[in-house]
Amino acid sequence: EKQTFAVIGLGRFGGSVCQTLADAGQEVLAIDHDEARVNDYKDIATQAVVADAQDEDVLRSLGIRNFDHVIIAIGEDIQASILVTLMVKEQGVKYVTAKAQNENHAKVLEKLGVDRVVHPERDMGVRIGRSLTSKNMIDYLDLDSNFKMAEILITNPRFFGRSLAELNFRDKYKLNVIAIAHSKSEMNLPAADDVLGLHDSILVAGPKDAIDQFEELMNSK
Amino acid sequence: EKQTFAVIGLGRFGGSVCQTLADAGQEVLAIDHDEARVNDYKDIATQAVVADAQDEDVLRSLGIRNFDHVIIAIGEDIQASILVTLMVKEQGVKYVTAKAQNENHAKVLEKLGVDRVVHPERDMGVRIGRSLTSKNMIDYLDLDSNFKMAEILITNPRFFGRSLAELNFRDKYKLNVIAIAHSKSEMNLPAADDVLGLHDSILVAGPKDAIDQFEELMNSK
Ligand SMILES: Nc1ncnc2c1ncn2[C@@H]1O[C@H](COP(=O)(O)OP(=O)(O)OP(=O)(O)O)[C@@H](O)[C@H]1O
Ligand SMILES: Nc1ncnc2c1ncn2[C@@H]1O[C@H](COP(=O)(O)OP(=O)(O)OP(=O)(O)O)[C@@H](O)[C@H]1O
Ligand SMILES: [Ca+2]
Ligand SMILES: [Ca+2]
Ligand SMILES: [Ca+2]
Ligand SMILES: [Ca+2]
Repeated sequence: EKQTFAVIGLGRFGGSVCQTLADAGQEVLAIDHDEARVNDYKDIATQAVVADAQDEDVLRSLGIRNFDHVIIAIGEDIQASILVTLMVKEQGVKYVTAKAQNENHAKVLEKLGVDRVVHPERDMGVRIGRSLTSKNMIDYLDLDSNFKMAEILITNPRFFGRSLAELNFRDKYKLNVIAIAHSKSEMNLPAADDVLGLHDSILVAGPKDAIDQFEELMNSK
Repeated sequence: EKQTFAVIGLGRFGGSVCQTLADAGQEVLAIDHDEARVNDYKDIATQAVVADAQDEDVLRSLGIRNFDHVIIAIGEDIQASILVTLMVKEQGVKYVTAKAQNENHAKVLEKLGVDRVVHPERDMGVRIGRSLTSKNMIDYLDLDSNFKMAEILITNPRFFGRSLAELNFRDKYKLNVIAIAHSKSEMNLPAADDVLGLHDSILVAGPKDAIDQFEELMNSK
């Protein structure tokens, strides 16, 4: 089941993808034109190469077309990102993931046939921005356009001492309780007889409205 | 309930935090020493200012100490990030979130009293790296050290035509089914009588082992 990956660009994002793939036991070729970056990954990647990926001959001699997935993680040099994407696609790589710098960059990458365009900074900015706007909502995740997940701190004493079964989240609040953490300890699968208390938090999933309504409940005594 | 935020550094991450806070109706002061960046946010933020945040007098005259939260989103200039963090903390801001460039940078920020150090590129690299290593696991999220979430494509025909109640995920697989998406459509809250089929995917949460075991089941016919 092992697949072959090439990561082009070993910045913070590309480097983290490379490390994660290597940790999972996958075969990874790491490429960067910056020698110091390549050195950082020479014991992590299967192979690490100092090369300018904008050079078509380099890509060909590395046999880029034989890789199952290529991740293009060049950010600031948009021109390089586009050119490398074009060549990687032309050489026939099946699956390409590329990092975009902004919306126009993303559009070009999509037109070039990139299978998955990612916006790491933007997406994390949304997550962290959302987690800051709410006292009770520790973290807020987009699972879908209207289906969200949030960790909510139980601060309304009306909920203290009551079990999940008794509270009946599914019917009463249209929420699915995914996990429960008692007194800031680790999260666990919830049980029907789990009783809520001070400093407990629950991870819930459901429609955005249902989450917002439940969160308001935390602030109304 | 409205709180006041200041975002220092309007790169991709800081800009996205600023936009998210503004979308949520919060009061946001946006600061960057790059005039073009500031112009991009002048109709989004409550106030947008061209200023070098390393200048203590600038921070004082902007009344930075009166803000509830300050987000320091300077990345490449680690020295500026550290100096600005020091001054923002010294001026008495209660809650500071700061973006780190690497592990050592993160350590310094923590020592300076930053409440939340974030690594947007690294964290998204891990997420996307994990989603690439598995055919069935569309996405894999860390909720806790051992409590994970993953979207799993149902590919094993043994599961087709069976309802969630019948499959009894909680007892049999130690997993909580958070959401279900039929034939690649939107995700929804699962119902006990939801029947699985080809092209359906389910979002599950549970211990890492349980997720890995269930995923293996998808590949074993
Ligand atoms: N033509 C190229 N060939 C090989 N490597 C390249 C090329 N252009 C850029 N890179 C490398 O890609 C990496 C990431 O690029 P850059 O720093 O511009 O992106 P970034 O979006 O700021 O990255 P991050 O935010 O993930 O740290 C850098 O290490 C850089 O040396
Ligand atoms: N001393 C400073 N005062 C004000 N703004 C600053 C200062 N130093 C850097 N900035 C701004 O911070 C923003 C983000 O910095 P930088 O581009 O170095 O980080 P980054 O990690 O590459 O950002 P991202 O990956 O989120 O795009 C830039 O717009 C930059 O102009
Ligand atoms: Ca960079
Ligand atoms: Ca930058
Ligand atoms: Ca950068
Ligand atoms: Ca970046």
